[in-house]
Amino acid sequence: MTTNALPTVTPYEPVSWVAGGLRLLDQTLLPHAIEYREIDSLESAVEAIVAMRVRGAPAIGIAAAYALAQAIRDDGAEAAPAAAADLANARPTAVNLRWAIDRVMHRIEGAGDAAEAALGEARAIHEQQRAADELMAGYGASLLGGASTVLTHCNTGPLATGGGGTALGVAIEAHRRGLVEDVLVDETRPRLQGARLTTWELEQHSVPHRLITDSSAAIHMAAGRVSAVLTGADRIAANGDTANKVGTYALAIVAKHHDVPFYVVAPISTIDANSPDGRAIPIEERDASEVTTIGGETLVPDATRAANPAFDVTPASLITAIVTELGVLSPAYKRSIEDALELAGSGVGT
Amino acid sequence: MTTNALPTVTPYEPVSWVAGGLRLLDQTLLPHAIEYREIDSLESAVEAIVAMRVRGAPAIGIAAAYALAQAIRDDGAEAAPAAAADLANARPTAVNLRWAIDRVMHRIEGAGDAAEAALGEARAIHEQQRAADELMAGYGASLLGGASTVLTHCNTGPLATGGGGTALGVAIEAHRRGLVEDVLVDETRPRLQGARLTTWELEQHSVPHRLITDSSAAIHMAAGRVSAVLTGADRIAANGDTANKVGTYALAIVAKHHDVPFYVVAPISTIDANSPDGRAIPIEERDASEVTTIGGETLVPDATRAANPAFDVTPASLITAIVTELGVLSPAYKRSIEDALELAGSGVGT
Repeated sequence: MTTNALPTVTPYEPVSWVAGGLRLLDQTLLPHAIEYREIDSLESAVEAIVAMRVRGAPAIGIAAAYALAQAIRDDGAEAAPAAAADLANARPTAVNLRWAIDRVMHRIEGAGDAAEAALGEARAIHEQQRAADELMAGYGASLLGGASTVLTHCNTGPLATGGGGTALGVAIEAHRRGLVEDVLVDETRPRLQGARLTTWELEQHSVPHRLITDSSAAIHMAAGRVSAVLTGADRIAANGDTANKVGTYALAIVAKHHDVPFYVVAPISTIDANSPDGRAIPIEERDASEVTTIGGETLVPDATRAANPAFDVTPASLITAIVTELGVLSPAYKRSIEDALELAGSGVGT
Repeated sequence: MTTNALPTVTPYEPVSWVAGGLRLLDQTLLPHAIEYREIDSLESAVEAIVAMRVRGAPAIGIAAAYALAQAIRDDGAEAAPAAAADLANARPTAVNLRWAIDRVMHRIEGAGDAAEAALGEARAIHEQQRAADELMAGYGASLLGGASTVLTHCNTGPLATGGGGTALGVAIEAHRRGLVEDVLVDETRPRLQGARLTTWELEQHSVPHRLITDSSAAIHMAAGRVSAVLTGADRIAANGDTANKVGTYALAIVAKHHDVPFYVVAPISTIDANSPDGRAIPIEERDASEVTTIGGETLVPDATRAANPAFDVTPASLITAIVTELGVLSPAYKRSIEDALELAGSGVGT
């Protein structure tokens, strides 16, 4: 079985296949510790996805594909369907997870060596994500003028994709081209991916940035300081409605109110043609303790309940454009998404 | 000098004059500990306001008035101007602070016993706030239909006013009347007053509630679950533009987007006739560490900067009505505010 890792694209590797096994950078420990975990069983892969040691829709898909290949190698092709189901159920909203698993399952049908075929497909998914990220970074940067300040939510950098990143990849590339001079980073409650991960990635890439609370984004827009909002996506419906980290919807409303362009950056694999609109997208409700506690300390009285949806849906009408590896999709999205899916199906691009 | 406290209106007393001195409930320790502090010097009063041991625009005003009376008693009337300036500079945005100090300073002019006069004025301010809160609660509740779910930001309960509260006082009173069945509580980053204080107060008053992250308010509105938004104010300009806890502006935009009524609840003392509009209101920038650390833990890389405005300004155009102790003010606010100030100046109401 192939054991060599893909060439490194960042100083850190969130998802990699090293020495015959899946290795994950434990994102729950960042930015304080850079600690890698060898994932040696299906159970530990599922645990890593549920506990968000690996997170970000594309990175989850890649990790699941590698984990499935590993399970097939260790337990045989007959173990594949159950392993695929366990992985697919680890998180409900991101569609890339199911898409990556389906690709591996499809590939091993009738393959001579199922383990080799599965790993080959996982590596192809990983490589294609990297290529897609590079293309999205270029297309996205071309939307920005000089001296921009962009605002972003959650984490959509290399950590989230295993490549160069989606929305944050655009910011990093645009900064490299001299088009972005500052990035405003939403802290992204409740799990603080912006504070913990995005600031760290921008620091690693020497991009100037400022951390802000989620609800203060509106002030910066009112002051005319925001050139564009860049976010990723966990699932895009056929009409362009986009599920992404909770808070994205409010940000889109606030951007619209200030006439600030709102760009979604996501690979074609994020589009779910089977979801006609946002109402069809399942939204993961995570444990209330993510809101009621901070750093292990309980903030609230014992009887206090909390609501904690992990995602929300931004209607297509609030999205200025969707940046994909096949180009920039514009409204009306039903048509532009159909065209992109047709192009993707024809084998052009990734 | 008068030493008896005002009659108790809640099981806890955020600001009181007890045994000849100012006593504050240390709000930085809630909900874990109910600890009172005897404020025995001007320095400790200023520290308590800066460190937000007492907070909420009306409560700050009352505490400052008592502290000024105490300074005059201890150091003589000649110490009053310097003490007044120190207290007024403790926090820049809330106008009630200056208003309360001005009232005390005006009252001692030519008074025989300056200390007695100052304390009398402080007690009058406190008593009038309580009366105003009761009136606002009634006027505000009358705006709500039955079975409402209201959404609120920051903390505007008894803790914030030394009376029954402003916006949260409306929610509590409306629940008592059977008009409110659930309160959605924004956690209110960065200082988490919603999570730490508002849930605790609602628990004390047996009002059902759920804690949410600030940026998820939009989801609940999109789902049709929010009947009205109720917030307080730190300063209201002559045209109705309202400075309040950071995040209020985004909430008002999101409420407008969903046609959810957005009510500001604040006493007349919050209106600053000298600020023609929101641009004239100074916005306090607090220490970046409120955003970059949580519970003492640093979240971000050392080099990461943060922006941390404590307040934002909601334009009058996004405010459905302003509930005061003199009644409910409607747009156009320039006129309705002028009328209310004239009524207040004539001695009607508080």
